[in-house]
Amino acid sequence: MTAARREDEVMELARRRGFIWAAFEIYGGASGFFDYGPLGAALKRKIESLWREFYTLGEGFYEIETTTIGIRDVFDASGHLECFMDKMVECKKCHSLFRADHVGERCPDCGGEFSEPQDFNLMFKTRIGAVTSVGGKSEAYLRPETAQGMFVNFPRLLRFHRNKLPFGIIQIGRAYRNEISPRQGIIRLREFTLAEAEVFVLPHEKNKHPRFHEVEDVVMRLKPNYMDEEIEITVKEAVERKIIAHEYLGYHMARVQQFLEKIGIPVERLRFRQHEHDEMAHYAEDCWDAEFLSDRFGWVEIVGIADRGDYDLSAHSRKAKVDMSVPVVTGGEEAEGAREGNENLSVFPHVIEPSYGIDRIIYALLESSFYKEEVRGEVRRVLRFKRCVAPVEVAVLPLLNRKELVNKAKEVFQMIRSHGIFAEYDASGSIGRRYRRQDEIGTPYCVTIDYETLENDTVTIRDRDSMKQVRVSIAELPAKLRGDVESMFTFSR
Amino acid sequence: MTAARREDEVMELARRRGFIWAAFEIYGGASGFFDYGPLGAALKRKIESLWREFYTLGEGFYEIETTTIGIRDVFDASGHLECFMDKMVECKKCHSLFRADHVGERCPDCGGEFSEPQDFNLMFKTRIGAVTSVGGKSEAYLRPETAQGMFVNFPRLLRFHRNKLPFGIIQIGRAYRNEISPRQGIIRLREFTLAEAEVFVLPHEKNKHPRFHEVEDVVMRLKPNYMDEEIEITVKEAVERKIIAHEYLGYHMARVQQFLEKIGIPVERLRFRQHEHDEMAHYAEDCWDAEFLSDRFGWVEIVGIADRGDYDLSAHSRKAKVDMSVPVVTGGEEAEGAREGNENLSVFPHVIEPSYGIDRIIYALLESSFYKEEVRGEVRRVLRFKRCVAPVEVAVLPLLNRKELVNKAKEVFQMIRSHGIFAEYDASGSIGRRYRRQDEIGTPYCVTIDYETLENDTVTIRDRDSMKQVRVSIAELPAKLRGDVESMFTFSR
Repeated sequence: MTAARREDEVMELARRRGFIWAAFEIYGGASGFFDYGPLGAALKRKIESLWREFYTLGEGFYEIETTTIGIRDVFDASGHLECFMDKMVECKKCHSLFRADHVGERCPDCGGEFSEPQDFNLMFKTRIGAVTSVGGKSEAYLRPETAQGMFVNFPRLLRFHRNKLPFGIIQIGRAYRNEISPRQGIIRLREFTLAEAEVFVLPHEKNKHPRFHEVEDVVMRLKPNYMDEEIEITVKEAVERKIIAHEYLGYHMARVQQFLEKIGIPVERLRFRQHEHDEMAHYAEDCWDAEFLSDRFGWVEIVGIADRGDYDLSAHSRKAKVDMSVPVVTGGEEAEGAREGNENLSVFPHVIEPSYGIDRIIYALLESSFYKEEVRGEVRRVLRFKRCVAPVEVAVLPLLNRKELVNKAKEVFQMIRSHGIFAEYDASGSIGRRYRRQDEIGTPYCVTIDYETLENDTVTIRDRDSMKQVRVSIAELPAKLRGDVESMFTFSR
Repeated sequence: MTAARREDEVMELARRRGFIWAAFEIYGGASGFFDYGPLGAALKRKIESLWREFYTLGEGFYEIETTTIGIRDVFDASGHLECFMDKMVECKKCHSLFRADHVGERCPDCGGEFSEPQDFNLMFKTRIGAVTSVGGKSEAYLRPETAQGMFVNFPRLLRFHRNKLPFGIIQIGRAYRNEISPRQGIIRLREFTLAEAEVFVLPHEKNKHPRFHEVEDVVMRLKPNYMDEEIEITVKEAVERKIIAHEYLGYHMARVQQFLEKIGIPVERLRFRQHEHDEMAHYAEDCWDAEFLSDRFGWVEIVGIADRGDYDLSAHSRKAKVDMSVPVVTGGEEAEGAREGNENLSVFPHVIEPSYGIDRIIYALLESSFYKEEVRGEVRRVLRFKRCVAPVEVAVLPLLNRKELVNKAKEVFQMIRSHGIFAEYDASGSIGRRYRRQDEIGTPYCVTIDYETLENDTVTIRDRDSMKQVRVSIAELPAKLRGDVESMFTFSR
């Protein structure tokens, strides 16, 4: 099986089984738009919940929710109106549009000549309210990142934190980029989900993260922009050798890696690549992309970790004429970058930002979890999701579609659900076919009700990966499913 | 304290404490746009999670996630391009715009005359991709409801359910209405969150809901469109007397009431009002609004429960030329509405839709949870949230800001968090002030660490509503907080 084929198969499976498919299919679709079906939405929900927990319970950050529509002032100040552009060319013959940096000399569709490249702003534009007979400005844009909602609310958020820095704010939500001609499935979406954390910290405190010791031994694969090779190195060493600029950036890069591993992205398919200077976003002082090695697309950015410096807060302060700098205790070189305020020295906080592309992470999970193997002469397709993200945790299956087994199976199913475990009941088709379906959607465990169940109240639990089965009593089933299923099989997940 | 004042106070509190505030405040705001701060977002998250559980675990529905941008075809078929309109007038003098049905003869701002009313489409319009030199159609709209995403995906969703009806699909997400001149705070937003369920059912099966018996004794306050008075009646009787058209509608109305009660909306401030015929949305056969009696705004719709009939599926079938009707087993009058297909009789499923306006529900919760009282000569403001929605479940407070108490308090705080309970730690200001703050944000319990704690490892738990305190050992604290705190005080919540 070739790599490309394997990728096609996983997307075909994702479509067929109800994970993800092109939006507006009945109308022929629209490139760059995908919908999540029942299993995809469940997978997405689980990833988002784990992410939220990771940053709220783990880091003590608070979550906010701001609007997806932003007024012109916001993106004027943020630089997106001026800088959030791609160069676009149009084929003079067939009038197809392309991103200039994605094509060569001639149109890949018809061989026609290209027009001169033009700048194209990637924000979706709209208008708030109606236009009056005398005009009236009401331009608005769909946000290209959730981050701006956190920056423009900085004064309120600072007050909420009783004027104490550092603090972190997170947001999960839709963002939009009006790509010129997206042709890479869910890798390049016009509407997508970001999960972003903005960590506000005084500039002279970036060198010392209070919890750095917790991550200092994490080994990462780095590709700095001044090296031709990748290196494997601990975060501690990378910061000491100034490969990573400071502890705050290193700390958050390590946390990104830990989160991705936690949900099941194989660490051997991960690297952190530092942006080239000419590639950096207009707001970034420094930026590292966590990249996933895809069979289909090569290295793909799935998380960006940027040091945005004081770019955004100072830009909004200027534009809105609201001073968002904060007073600092003076003390020689500590207060580097500080400026004289009314009475005190004050400084703009800097922002460290891990920004996760949830859809790409889902793609990475699907691709890297997909296995195809031969079992007793039949093809078995499996999504080896970790249990913490599997859309269905347990399937309850009567061995045969007979009344006495069905009744008992439904009873067991209800009992499992009542313990808050997301279970699915399935009685249609042969047991083999049902196991295959559960393998395909990545269900870690199948509980089967057979005739022995009716005799002694025991069921079998089948493990997706080893396909081994063990017998347990119904009474101990919830506890087993809650906790130590793994230990019942010969390997751990 | 007058009613209006009480409402102003709760919104002032919501702003000050970090629940909700006007978006783009630093730029002067934009009417119809609000942001959720840390506590508001936590409240919203909890309501959404409870809602999701209610419909997935409770009703067995699956959740999906579709795009917020929709192509023109979708809203052409759905009727929103033609019918989703308000009449608008413009003041000839000051050029302010108003919804025609919200004003009288003259401009309320300047007394000027109005222009002739015009139709204004309430969808936000945008454009996908760039325009080529030869034009090209790429009009798109921000969805006015999440529902259309579920309708256009019906073929895939039906297959996912193995062609068996009935089934339900839910979606939680942003929706948009470009209101002409919204002036009612978070009651009339241009960007808002809907939680919608679409239940697909064969038309001749609407009269019999398999779980109707579970809700038949629920007593509801109804205002049918042909009566001048409200009546209190069980769902069972309302359906029998044909006040509510059928069991499916009655069942879902009862579930709506149960959900609203569960999160803390007082049932005495709830009623179900049937739409007048000329008020019904263009897609609705029948519609009941669950309304909340607001001190400020009077009766406000917070949930709409519509019978959309086959409007949407048949409209998309025609437009997309994809037949979304399903075969039915024929059987005399049972198959009413069925039409001859290629070989079988087929029929369009009908749709019953409970559609929750999450922002308005949050407003209703804030307003009805807010209490102001005098305690020992001081004003106490309290949000009496039910624990299941309270943004902070437990606050951990050292009695005084002294090292030995602080250390112990942080230890207790970490221990509580490690049990997955969302706790907040606060050491700043007098203990009385900290209790007041927790009362204001609706925290049900405060755990206080005092000098007795250092002696015998016990802490006090203070109940928000009774302000009573009990002493428990730290060892039993997590179990107490998890389960039976209520029973320790003289009343239950």
